[in-house]
Amino acid sequence: MKILGIDSSGLVASVAVVEDGVILGEYTMNYKKTHSQTLLPMLDELRQMTELDLNSVDAIAIAAGPGSFTGLRIGAATAKGLGLALDKPLVEVPTLEGLAYNLYGTDRLVCPLMDARRNQVYTGIYRFVPEGNDFSLMAVEQQCAKDIREILARLNELQQEVIFLGDGVPVYRNIIEQELQVKYYYASSSNNRQRAASVAALGAEFFARGQVVTAAEHQPEYLRKSQAEREQEEKAAQEGTV
Amino acid sequence: MKILGIDSSGLVASVAVVEDGVILGEYTMNYKKTHSQTLLPMLDELRQMTELDLNSVDAIAIAAGPGSFTGLRIGAATAKGLGLALDKPLVEVPTLEGLAYNLYGTDRLVCPLMDARRNQVYTGIYRFVPEGNDFSLMAVEQQCAKDIREILARLNELQQEVIFLGDGVPVYRNIIEQELQVKYYYASSSNNRQRAASVAALGAEFFARGQVVTAAEHQPEYLRKSQAEREQEEKAAQEGTV
Repeated sequence: MKILGIDSSGLVASVAVVEDGVILGEYTMNYKKTHSQTLLPMLDELRQMTELDLNSVDAIAIAAGPGSFTGLRIGAATAKGLGLALDKPLVEVPTLEGLAYNLYGTDRLVCPLMDARRNQVYTGIYRFVPEGNDFSLMAVEQQCAKDIREILARLNELQQEVIFLGDGVPVYRNIIEQELQVKYYYASSSNNRQRAASVAALGAEFFARGQVVTAAEHQPEYLRKSQAEREQEEKAAQEGTV
Repeated sequence: MKILGIDSSGLVASVAVVEDGVILGEYTMNYKKTHSQTLLPMLDELRQMTELDLNSVDAIAIAAGPGSFTGLRIGAATAKGLGLALDKPLVEVPTLEGLAYNLYGTDRLVCPLMDARRNQVYTGIYRFVPEGNDFSLMAVEQQCAKDIREILARLNELQQEVIFLGDGVPVYRNIIEQELQVKYYYASSSNNRQRAASVAALGAEFFARGQVVTAAEHQPEYLRKSQAEREQEEKAAQEGTV
Protein backbone atom coordinates (compact mmCIF):
# COMPACT_ATOMS: atom_id res chain seq x y z
CA MET A 1 0.00 0.00 0.00
CA LYS A 2 1.35 3.40 -1.00
CA ILE A 3 -0.03 6.59 0.53
CA LEU A 4 0.90 10.15 -0.38
CA GLY A 5 0.60 12.48 2.61
CA ILE A 6 0.22 16.26 2.48
CA ASP A 7 0.13 18.74 5.37
CA SER A 8 -0.11 22.48 4.81
CA SER A 9 -2.40 23.20 7.74
CA GLY A 10 0.05 25.51 9.52
CA LEU A 11 3.34 27.27 8.81
CA VAL A 12 4.86 23.92 7.88
CA ALA A 13 4.56 22.56 4.34
CA SER A 14 5.22 18.84 4.21
CA VAL A 15 4.84 16.02 1.70
CA ALA A 16 5.65 12.34 2.18
CA VAL A 17 5.12 8.94 0.64
CA VAL A 18 4.72 5.94 2.94
CA GLU A 19 4.84 2.49 1.35
CA ASP A 20 4.25 -0.85 3.13
CA GLY A 21 5.33 0.32 6.55
CA VAL A 22 8.25 2.61 5.74
CA ILE A 23 8.78 6.15 4.52
CA LEU A 24 9.82 6.20 0.87
CA GLY A 25 10.45 9.94 1.07
CA GLU A 26 9.53 12.94 3.17
CA TYR A 27 10.12 16.62 2.56
CA THR A 28 9.24 19.23 5.17
CA MET A 29 9.71 22.98 5.26
CA ASN A 30 8.96 25.39 8.06
CA TYR A 31 9.83 28.63 6.40
CA LYS A 32 8.24 31.93 5.53
CA LYS A 33 7.53 31.06 1.91
CA THR A 34 3.83 30.59 1.14
CA HIS A 35 2.53 27.09 0.54
CA SER A 36 1.34 28.05 -2.94
CA GLN A 37 5.01 28.55 -3.82
CA THR A 38 6.38 25.49 -2.08
CA LEU A 39 3.95 22.58 -1.88
CA LEU A 40 3.82 21.46 -5.52
CA PRO A 41 7.55 22.00 -6.22
CA MET A 42 8.31 19.96 -3.08
CA LEU A 43 6.03 17.16 -4.22
CA ASP A 44 7.55 17.22 -7.69
CA GLU A 45 11.07 17.12 -6.23
CA LEU A 46 10.15 14.13 -4.06
CA ARG A 47 8.47 12.40 -7.00
CA GLN A 48 11.57 12.81 -9.17
CA MET A 49 14.06 11.73 -6.48
CA THR A 50 12.09 8.59 -5.63
CA GLU A 51 11.15 7.94 -9.28
CA LEU A 52 7.57 7.80 -8.09
CA ASP A 53 4.80 7.10 -10.59
CA LEU A 54 1.91 9.04 -9.02
CA ASN A 55 -0.49 6.53 -10.61
CA SER A 56 0.93 3.87 -8.29
CA VAL A 57 -0.34 5.70 -5.20
CA ASP A 58 -3.39 4.09 -3.52
CA ALA A 59 -4.70 7.25 -1.88
CA ILE A 60 -3.86 10.81 -0.97
CA ALA A 61 -3.97 11.56 2.75
CA ILE A 62 -4.51 15.22 3.55
CA ALA A 63 -4.35 17.09 6.85
CA ALA A 64 -7.98 18.09 6.57
CA GLY A 65 -8.17 20.84 9.18
CA PRO A 66 -8.40 22.75 11.34
CA GLY A 67 -5.56 25.15 10.71
CA SER A 68 -4.66 28.20 8.67
CA PHE A 69 -7.57 28.88 6.28
CA THR A 70 -5.27 29.67 3.37
CA GLY A 71 -3.00 26.72 4.15
CA LEU A 72 -5.94 24.31 4.32
CA ARG A 73 -7.33 25.61 1.02
CA ILE A 74 -3.99 25.20 -0.75
CA GLY A 75 -3.67 21.67 0.66
CA ALA A 76 -7.25 20.80 -0.29
CA ALA A 77 -6.87 22.22 -3.80
CA THR A 78 -3.65 20.25 -4.29
CA ALA A 79 -5.10 16.98 -2.95
CA LYS A 80 -8.37 17.39 -4.89
CA GLY A 81 -6.52 18.21 -8.10
CA LEU A 82 -4.27 15.18 -7.74
CA GLY A 83 -7.17 12.94 -6.74
CA LEU A 84 -9.27 14.00 -9.73
CA ALA A 85 -6.41 13.77 -12.23
CA LEU A 86 -5.18 10.39 -10.95
CA ASP A 87 -8.66 9.04 -10.09
CA LYS A 88 -7.56 8.22 -6.53
CA PRO A 89 -9.50 8.52 -3.26
CA LEU A 90 -8.63 11.03 -0.57
CA VAL A 91 -8.18 10.24 3.11
CA GLU A 92 -9.10 13.06 5.47
CA VAL A 93 -6.80 13.07 8.49
CA PRO A 94 -7.89 15.47 11.25
CA THR A 95 -4.95 17.88 11.61
CA LEU A 96 -4.64 17.43 15.37
CA GLU A 97 -4.60 13.63 15.08
CA GLY A 98 -1.83 13.81 12.48
CA LEU A 99 0.16 16.07 14.79
CA ALA A 100 -0.42 13.84 17.83
CA TYR A 101 0.76 10.85 15.78
CA ASN A 102 4.30 12.34 15.85
CA LEU A 103 4.53 11.00 19.40
CA TYR A 104 3.62 7.41 18.45
CA GLY A 105 4.56 5.03 21.25
CA THR A 106 4.28 7.32 24.27
CA ASP A 107 1.99 6.20 27.07
CA ARG A 108 1.46 9.75 28.25
CA LEU A 109 -1.43 11.87 27.04
CA VAL A 110 -0.66 13.92 23.94
CA CYS A 111 -2.05 17.44 23.64
CA PRO A 112 -1.31 19.21 20.36
CA LEU A 113 -1.79 22.97 20.46
CA MET A 114 -2.14 25.05 17.30
CA ASP A 115 -2.35 28.78 17.79
CA ALA A 116 -5.78 29.90 16.55
CA ARG A 117 -5.33 33.55 17.63
CA ARG A 118 -7.92 35.43 19.70
CA ASN A 119 -6.80 33.47 22.83
CA GLN A 120 -7.90 30.21 21.26
CA VAL A 121 -6.13 27.03 20.28
CA TYR A 122 -7.04 24.21 17.97
CA THR A 123 -6.45 21.27 20.22
CA GLY A 124 -7.48 17.81 21.34
CA ILE A 125 -6.29 15.17 23.81
CA TYR A 126 -5.03 11.82 22.56
CA ARG A 127 -3.67 8.54 23.83
CA PHE A 128 -1.90 5.62 22.16
CA VAL A 129 -3.67 2.35 22.93
CA PRO A 130 -1.74 -0.92 22.53
CA GLU A 131 -3.21 -3.17 19.84
CA GLY A 132 -1.13 -6.31 19.38
CA ASN A 133 2.40 -5.11 18.64
CA ASP A 134 1.22 -1.72 17.41
CA PHE A 135 -0.57 1.28 18.83
CA SER A 136 -3.86 2.90 17.85
CA LEU A 137 -4.45 6.59 18.36
CA MET A 138 -7.52 7.25 20.51
CA ALA A 139 -9.14 10.63 21.08
CA VAL A 140 -9.82 11.43 24.74
CA GLU A 141 -11.03 14.84 23.53
CA GLN A 142 -11.82 15.23 19.84
CA GLN A 143 -10.22 18.15 18.03
CA CYS A 144 -11.86 21.48 18.74
CA ALA A 145 -11.29 25.22 18.98
CA LYS A 146 -11.06 26.18 22.65
CA ASP A 147 -9.71 28.77 25.02
CA ILE A 148 -6.28 27.56 26.14
CA ARG A 149 -7.43 27.68 29.77
CA GLU A 150 -10.34 25.34 29.02
CA ILE A 151 -8.15 22.57 27.63
CA LEU A 152 -5.70 22.96 30.53
CA ALA A 153 -8.61 22.64 32.98
CA ARG A 154 -9.63 19.41 31.24
CA LEU A 155 -6.06 18.09 31.54
CA ASN A 156 -6.09 18.95 35.25
CA GLU A 157 -9.27 16.87 35.58
CA LEU A 158 -7.67 13.90 33.81
CA GLN A 159 -4.74 13.92 36.27
CA GLN A 160 -2.30 12.23 33.91
CA GLU A 161 1.11 13.18 32.53
CA VAL A 162 0.91 14.96 29.20
CA ILE A 163 3.21 15.95 26.33
CA PHE A 164 2.49 19.17 24.41
CA LEU A 165 3.47 19.92 20.84
CA GLY A 166 2.57 22.33 18.06
CA ASP A 167 3.02 25.99 17.22
CA GLY A 168 0.75 26.96 20.12
CA VAL A 169 3.37 25.83 22.64
CA PRO A 170 5.68 28.87 22.44
CA VAL A 171 2.63 31.18 22.39
CA TYR A 172 0.94 29.74 25.50
CA ARG A 173 3.96 28.41 27.44
CA ASN A 174 3.48 30.91 30.29
CA ILE A 175 -0.20 30.07 30.70
CA ILE A 176 0.62 26.34 30.71
CA GLU A 177 3.18 26.89 33.48
CA GLN A 178 0.70 28.93 35.53
CA GLU A 179 -2.40 26.79 35.11
CA LEU A 180 -1.35 23.18 34.73
CA GLN A 181 -1.28 21.03 37.87
CA VAL A 182 -0.18 17.76 36.27
CA LYS A 183 3.34 16.80 35.19
CA TYR A 184 3.89 17.95 31.62
CA TYR A 185 6.54 17.78 28.94
CA TYR A 186 7.29 19.37 25.60
CA ALA A 187 7.99 17.41 22.42
CA SER A 188 11.47 17.66 20.90
CA SER A 189 12.44 19.97 18.05
CA SER A 190 12.39 16.93 15.77
CA ASN A 191 8.75 16.04 16.41
CA ASN A 192 6.94 19.18 17.57
CA ARG A 193 5.47 20.35 14.25
CA GLN A 194 3.36 18.87 11.45
CA ARG A 195 4.90 16.02 9.44
CA ALA A 196 3.36 14.61 6.27
CA ALA A 197 4.79 11.19 7.18
CA SER A 198 2.50 11.13 10.22
CA VAL A 199 -0.46 12.13 8.03
CA ALA A 200 0.44 9.40 5.53
CA ALA A 201 1.01 6.74 8.23
CA LEU A 202 -2.28 7.51 9.98
CA GLY A 203 -3.93 7.89 6.57
CA ALA A 204 -2.80 4.34 5.72
CA GLU A 205 -4.73 3.08 8.76
CA PHE A 206 -7.85 5.01 7.73
CA PHE A 207 -7.50 3.74 4.16
CA ALA A 208 -7.22 0.14 5.34
CA ARG A 209 -10.54 0.63 7.20
CA GLY A 210 -12.15 2.09 4.07
CA GLN A 211 -12.37 5.63 5.47
CA VAL A 212 -12.01 7.47 2.17
CA VAL A 213 -13.80 10.26 0.29
CA THR A 214 -13.74 11.21 -3.36
CA ALA A 215 -11.71 14.19 -4.49
CA ALA A 216 -15.00 15.96 -5.28
CA GLU A 217 -16.38 15.29 -1.79
CA HIS A 218 -13.40 16.52 0.22
CA GLN A 219 -13.58 19.85 1.95
CA PRO A 220 -11.47 21.20 4.79
CA GLU A 221 -12.78 21.19 8.34
CA TYR A 222 -12.23 24.77 9.51
CA LEU A 223 -13.90 24.41 12.95
CA ARG A 224 -14.38 28.19 13.02
CA LYS A 225 -15.58 30.88 10.69
CA SER A 226 -12.95 32.81 8.77
CA GLN A 227 -12.19 36.42 9.64
CA ALA A 228 -13.89 37.57 6.42
CA GLU A 229 -17.06 35.63 7.29
CA ARG A 230 -17.10 36.97 10.84
CA GLU A 231 -16.66 40.55 9.65
CA GLN A 232 -19.39 40.16 7.06
CA GLU A 233 -21.78 38.79 9.67
CA GLU A 234 -20.95 41.55 12.15
CA LYS A 235 -21.50 44.14 9.46
CA ALA A 236 -24.77 42.53 8.41
CA ALA A 237 -25.90 42.40 12.05
CA GLN A 238 -25.11 46.10 12.53
CA GLU A 239 -27.06 46.93 9.38
CA GLY A 240 -29.96 44.89 10.70
CA THR A 241 -29.97 42.52 7.77
CA VAL A 242 -29.52 39.41 9.95
CA MET B 1 21.32 27.80 17.61
CA LYS B 2 21.23 26.27 14.16
CA ILE B 3 22.32 22.67 13.57
CA LEU B 4 22.60 20.88 10.24
CA GLY B 5 21.94 17.16 10.60
CA ILE B 6 23.05 14.43 8.19
CA ASP B 7 22.30 10.71 8.30
CA SER B 8 23.45 8.31 5.59
CA SER B 9 24.26 5.42 7.90
CA GLY B 10 21.75 3.03 6.33
CA LEU B 11 19.56 2.85 3.24
CA VAL B 12 18.02 6.17 4.22
CA ALA B 13 19.60 9.45 3.16
CA SER B 14 18.40 12.36 5.26
CA VAL B 15 19.34 16.00 5.80
CA ALA B 16 17.72 18.50 8.16
CA VAL B 17 18.23 21.86 9.75
CA VAL B 18 16.96 22.44 13.28
CA GLU B 19 16.92 26.01 14.57
CA ASP B 20 16.02 27.12 18.10
CA GLY B 21 13.77 24.21 18.89
CA VAL B 22 12.01 23.64 15.56
CA ILE B 23 12.77 22.00 12.24
CA LEU B 24 13.52 24.58 9.57
CA GLY B 25 13.58 21.87 6.92
CA GLU B 26 14.01 18.12 6.59
CA TYR B 27 14.45 15.98 3.52
CA THR B 28 14.54 12.20 3.74
CA MET B 29 14.79 9.51 1.08
CA ASN B 30 14.63 5.76 1.49
CA TYR B 31 15.23 4.67 -2.04
CA LYS B 32 17.63 2.56 -4.03
CA LYS B 33 19.74 5.47 -5.29
CA THR B 34 23.23 5.62 -3.77
CA HIS B 35 23.96 8.30 -1.21
CA SER B 36 26.75 9.72 -3.37
CA GLN B 37 24.06 10.62 -5.89
CA THR B 38 21.48 11.94 -3.44
CA LEU B 39 22.97 13.45 -0.30
CA LEU B 40 24.50 16.65 -1.65
CA PRO B 41 21.68 17.42 -4.12
CA MET B 42 19.21 16.96 -1.24
CA LEU B 43 21.19 19.31 0.98
CA ASP B 44 21.44 21.85 -1.82
CA GLU B 45 17.69 21.63 -2.47
CA LEU B 46 16.96 22.17 1.23
CA ARG B 47 19.42 25.06 1.37
CA GLN B 48 17.77 26.80 -1.58
CA MET B 49 14.20 26.24 -0.39
CA THR B 50 14.92 27.58 3.10
CA GLU B 51 17.26 30.31 1.78
CA LEU B 52 19.82 28.95 4.21
CA ASP B 53 23.23 30.58 4.42
CA LEU B 54 25.40 27.61 5.37
CA ASN B 55 27.75 30.03 7.18
CA SER B 56 24.97 30.69 9.68
CA VAL B 57 25.02 27.09 10.89
CA ASP B 58 26.62 26.55 14.34
CA ALA B 59 27.60 22.94 13.82
CA ILE B 60 27.14 19.91 11.60
CA ALA B 61 25.71 16.87 13.37
CA ILE B 62 26.49 13.59 11.67
CA ALA B 63 25.22 10.07 12.30
CA ALA B 64 28.71 8.85 13.13
CA GLY B 65 28.20 5.10 12.93
CA PRO B 66 27.79 2.24 13.06
CA GLY B 67 26.04 1.47 9.80
CA SER B 68 26.77 0.77 6.16
CA PHE B 69 30.51 1.33 5.60
CA THR B 70 29.98 3.12 2.30
CA GLY B 71 27.09 5.15 3.70
CA LEU B 72 29.11 6.24 6.73
CA ARG B 73 32.06 7.24 4.53
CA ILE B 74 29.86 9.32 2.24
CA GLY B 75 28.29 10.99 5.28
CA ALA B 76 31.67 11.59 6.91
CA ALA B 77 33.18 12.95 3.71
CA THR B 78 30.23 15.31 3.26
CA ALA B 79 30.29 16.50 6.89
CA LYS B 80 34.07 16.89 6.94
CA GLY B 81 34.06 18.78 3.65
CA LEU B 82 31.36 21.15 4.86
CA GLY B 83 33.03 21.57 8.26
CA LEU B 84 36.41 22.39 6.72
CA ALA B 85 35.00 24.76 4.10
CA LEU B 86 32.72 26.59 6.54
CA ASP B 87 35.10 26.34 9.53
CA LYS B 88 32.39 24.77 11.69
CA PRO B 89 32.66 22.03 14.31
CA LEU B 90 31.15 18.59 13.85
CA VAL B 91 28.94 16.79 16.37
CA GLU B 92 29.22 13.01 16.31
CA VAL B 93 25.85 11.43 17.07
CA PRO B 94 26.00 7.66 17.61
CA THR B 95 23.74 6.22 14.89
CA LEU B 96 21.68 4.10 17.29
CA GLU B 97 21.06 7.06 19.62
CA GLY B 98 19.85 9.17 16.70
CA LEU B 99 17.51 6.37 15.66
CA ALA B 100 16.21 5.87 19.22
CA TYR B 101 15.54 9.62 19.45
CA ASN B 102 12.71 9.16 16.90
CA LEU B 103 10.65 7.81 19.80
CA TYR B 104 11.19 10.85 22.04
CA GLY B 105 8.66 10.89 24.85
CA THR B 106 7.96 7.19 25.25
CA ASP B 107 8.46 5.71 28.71
CA ARG B 108 9.08 2.25 27.29
CA LEU B 109 12.54 0.98 26.46
CA VAL B 110 13.67 1.71 22.91
CA CYS B 111 15.67 -0.91 21.03
CA PRO B 112 16.86 0.13 17.57
CA LEU B 113 17.94 -2.75 15.33
CA MET B 114 20.06 -2.21 12.24
CA ASP B 115 20.73 -5.29 10.15
CA ALA B 116 24.50 -5.90 10.23
CA ARG B 117 24.32 -9.17 8.24
CA ARG B 118 26.01 -12.37 9.40
CA ASN B 119 23.24 -12.87 12.03
CA GLN B 120 24.28 -9.66 13.78
CA VAL B 121 22.58 -6.38 14.51
CA TYR B 122 23.87 -2.97 15.42
CA THR B 123 21.79 -2.24 18.44
CA GLY B 124 21.53 -0.66 21.88
CA ILE B 125 18.87 -0.16 24.55
CA TYR B 126 17.71 3.32 25.46
CA ARG B 127 15.32 5.10 27.79
CA PHE B 128 13.97 8.66 27.93
CA VAL B 129 14.55 10.17 31.36
CA PRO B 130 12.44 13.18 32.43
CA GLU B 131 14.52 16.31 32.99
CA GLY B 132 12.32 19.28 33.86
CA ASN B 133 9.80 19.57 31.03
CA ASP B 134 12.03 17.71 28.58
CA PHE B 135 13.51 14.24 28.23
CA SER B 136 17.12 13.12 28.07
CA LEU B 137 18.11 9.99 26.19
CA MET B 138 19.93 7.53 28.41
CA ALA B 139 21.73 4.38 27.25
CA VAL B 140 20.82 1.25 29.20
CA GLU B 141 23.07 -0.63 26.77
CA GLN B 142 25.51 1.40 24.67
CA GLN B 143 25.48 0.77 20.92
CA CYS B 144 27.22 -2.41 19.88
CA ALA B 145 27.32 -5.18 17.26
CA LYS B 146 25.64 -8.25 18.71
CA ASP B 147 23.88 -11.45 17.79
CA ILE B 148 20.15 -10.68 17.70
CA ARG B 149 19.53 -13.39 20.32
CA GLU B 150 21.97 -11.76 22.74
CA ILE B 151 20.15 -8.42 22.75
CA LEU B 152 16.78 -10.17 23.09
CA ALA B 153 18.15 -12.10 26.10
CA ARG B 154 19.20 -8.80 27.68
CA LEU B 155 15.70 -7.39 27.10
CA ASN B 156 14.21 -10.48 28.75
CA GLU B 157 16.45 -9.78 31.77
CA LEU B 158 15.31 -6.16 31.96
CA GLN B 159 11.64 -7.26 32.08
CA GLN B 160 10.26 -4.01 30.71
CA GLU B 161 8.09 -3.14 27.72
CA VAL B 162 10.11 -2.25 24.64
CA ILE B 163 9.60 -0.62 21.24
CA PHE B 164 11.69 -1.81 18.27
CA LEU B 165 12.60 0.19 15.22
CA GLY B 166 15.11 0.13 12.37
CA ASP B 167 15.79 -1.87 9.23
CA GLY B 168 16.63 -4.93 11.34
CA VAL B 169 12.99 -5.29 12.40
CA PRO B 170 11.65 -6.94 9.20
CA VAL B 171 14.77 -9.13 9.03
CA TYR B 172 14.55 -10.46 12.61
CA ARG B 173 10.81 -10.25 13.27
CA ASN B 174 10.40 -14.03 13.53
CA ILE B 175 13.26 -14.39 16.01
CA ILE B 176 11.83 -11.54 18.11
CA GLU B 177 8.44 -13.30 18.22
CA GLN B 178 10.07 -16.60 19.22
CA GLU B 179 12.55 -15.35 21.80
CA LEU B 180 11.13 -12.29 23.50
CA GLN B 181 9.25 -12.82 26.75
CA VAL B 182 8.38 -9.17 27.48
CA LYS B 183 5.63 -7.10 25.89
CA TYR B 184 6.98 -5.46 22.74
CA TYR B 185 5.86 -3.06 20.06
CA TYR B 186 7.02 -1.86 16.68
CA ALA B 187 7.48 1.81 15.78
CA SER B 188 5.17 3.29 13.14
CA SER B 189 6.04 3.70 9.47
CA SER B 190 6.56 7.40 10.15
CA ASN B 191 9.28 6.92 12.78
CA ASN B 192 10.93 3.53 12.19
CA ARG B 193 13.93 4.62 10.10
CA GLN B 194 16.75 7.18 10.37
CA ARG B 195 15.78 10.86 10.39
CA ALA B 196 18.28 13.69 10.13
CA ALA B 197 15.98 15.83 12.29
CA SER B 198 16.59 13.41 15.16
CA VAL B 199 20.35 13.60 14.55
CA ALA B 200 20.18 17.42 14.46
CA ALA B 201 17.97 17.65 17.58
CA LEU B 202 20.18 15.31 19.60
CA GLY B 203 23.24 17.00 18.07
CA ALA B 204 21.97 20.34 19.40
CA GLU B 205 22.03 18.87 22.93
CA PHE B 206 25.58 17.57 22.46
CA PHE B 207 26.66 20.92 21.00
CA ALA B 208 25.19 22.79 23.98
CA ARG B 209 27.34 20.57 26.24
CA GLY B 210 30.45 21.29 24.17
CA GLN B 211 30.67 17.77 22.74
CA VAL B 212 32.19 18.70 19.38
CA VAL B 213 35.12 17.62 17.23
CA THR B 214 36.89 19.37 14.37
CA ALA B 215 36.20 18.33 10.80
CA ALA B 216 39.76 16.95 10.67
CA GLU B 217 39.27 14.87 13.81
CA HIS B 218 36.00 13.20 12.83
CA GLN B 219 36.01 9.61 11.73
CA PRO B 220 33.14 7.15 11.58
CA GLU B 221 32.67 4.52 14.29
CA TYR B 222 32.33 1.27 12.37
CA LEU B 223 32.17 -1.06 15.42
CA ARG B 224 33.29 -3.93 13.16
CA LYS B 225 35.90 -4.50 10.52
CA SER B 226 34.83 -4.12 6.91
CA GLN B 227 34.48 -7.15 4.67
CA ALA B 228 37.63 -6.13 2.77
CA GLU B 229 39.64 -5.88 6.02
CA ARG B 230 38.34 -9.24 7.24
CA GLU B 231 39.21 -10.93 3.93
CA GLN B 232 42.68 -9.36 3.88
CA GLU B 233 43.34 -10.57 7.44
CA GLU B 234 42.08 -14.06 6.65
CA LYS B 235 44.27 -14.21 3.56
CA ALA B 236 47.28 -12.93 5.48
CA ALA B 237 46.65 -15.50 8.23
CA GLN B 238 46.48 -18.31 5.67
CA GLU B 239 49.73 -17.10 4.11
CA GLY B 240 51.37 -17.02 7.53
CA THR B 241 52.12 -13.30 7.36
CA VAL B 242 50.19 -12.47 10.54
